[in-house]
Amino acid sequence: MSFLSHLSSIISVSDSLQTELNSVTKQITVSKNQSIINIGHRCNDIYFVEKGLLRGYYLEEGKEITNWFAQEGEFGTCFYSFVAIKPSFETIQSLEDCILTQLPYSSLQNLYIKFPETERLGRIITETYYIKLEERLLSIQFKTAKERYQNFVLSKSSLLQRTSLGQIASYLGITQETLSRIRAEI
Amino acid sequence: MSFLSHLSSIISVSDSLQTELNSVTKQITVSKNQSIINIGHRCNDIYFVEKGLLRGYYLEEGKEITNWFAQEGEFGTCFYSFVAIKPSFETIQSLEDCILTQLPYSSLQNLYIKFPETERLGRIITETYYIKLEERLLSIQFKTAKERYQNFVLSKSSLLQRTSLGQIASYLGITQETLSRIRAEI
Repeated sequence: MSFLSHLSSIISVSDSLQTELNSVTKQITVSKNQSIINIGHRCNDIYFVEKGLLRGYYLEEGKEITNWFAQEGEFGTCFYSFVAIKPSFETIQSLEDCILTQLPYSSLQNLYIKFPETERLGRIITETYYIKLEERLLSIQFKTAKERYQNFVLSKSSLLQRTSLGQIASYLGITQETLSRIRAEI
Repeated sequence: MSFLSHLSSIISVSDSLQTELNSVTKQITVSKNQSIINIGHRCNDIYFVEKGLLRGYYLEEGKEITNWFAQEGEFGTCFYSFVAIKPSFETIQSLEDCILTQLPYSSLQNLYIKFPETERLGRIITETYYIKLEERLLSIQFKTAKERYQNFVLSKSSLLQRTSLGQIASYLGITQETLSRIRAEI
């Protein structure tokens, strides 16, 4: 799904907004295994995945911990860095060759002023991601490792063949050994 | 801080929006230890705490797990239920005598349509709570129980005397026994 179709599924996007979006966004291609943003740098852009797969990860005692995946039709950014204008604690990495729509922070702020309906978009998209994050928090606090993996298989089955065991394990907050054991059991 | 002052600290609130807000919100008083919303019911309102303290909790194997606290100047609602129009998995309880500003879901949706600047409010407030939730997720995944408690003492010191050990422990994702031991150590 393209960036504009995605937005149009949320609100009616006027022709003038569409023209503006085309002028302030950039479509970029990124090959597999590139770091788009590095830990410690400001994440100045939000990325919409037209094709491919991104992940955000941070380092905990030298180990990569996957914080999120963003596949086709989803947004990826280091939210904290992007919104709070602070250095990122995450690296954003392409797990596949990607086509991304890139929207800079300053352009988004201008859109908010010039096209008030984009505030509605921003509000609804943030609400949606808030609910997903809350689900994830509850799952990590109270679901067993097996339940978490089963839920991942159900809700993100398209990622199973596109990510490594280690990436899935750290995303679910379990060790790779535990994940291997669970997969063998199922 | 009053509801209107809080909103005015985020955007400039026009006289007409102020009049509308006064007409669609209701100030309610709730005495201590009341359930405002019960698990399984739709949470139809968002509450701004003018005075007092709310918490949201859910049940995990019969035990109350505190999901959030909302004190003066903060919003409390069962976000998932409120936004997704679904039954709440939380109970909202008053931990003290409270004065709350109550804003119903339908009034908020009307505000969004009638006063587009409220979209900006909604977007910025949701972003702020998203960042807090992300911090909490990272803290529960990777900080030790002691670090989590020390962070709670620093960031929410005003709650230490106003909440029970059990409420703080479950909020931090640790047992009450562990929390008692940590407090004895410090």
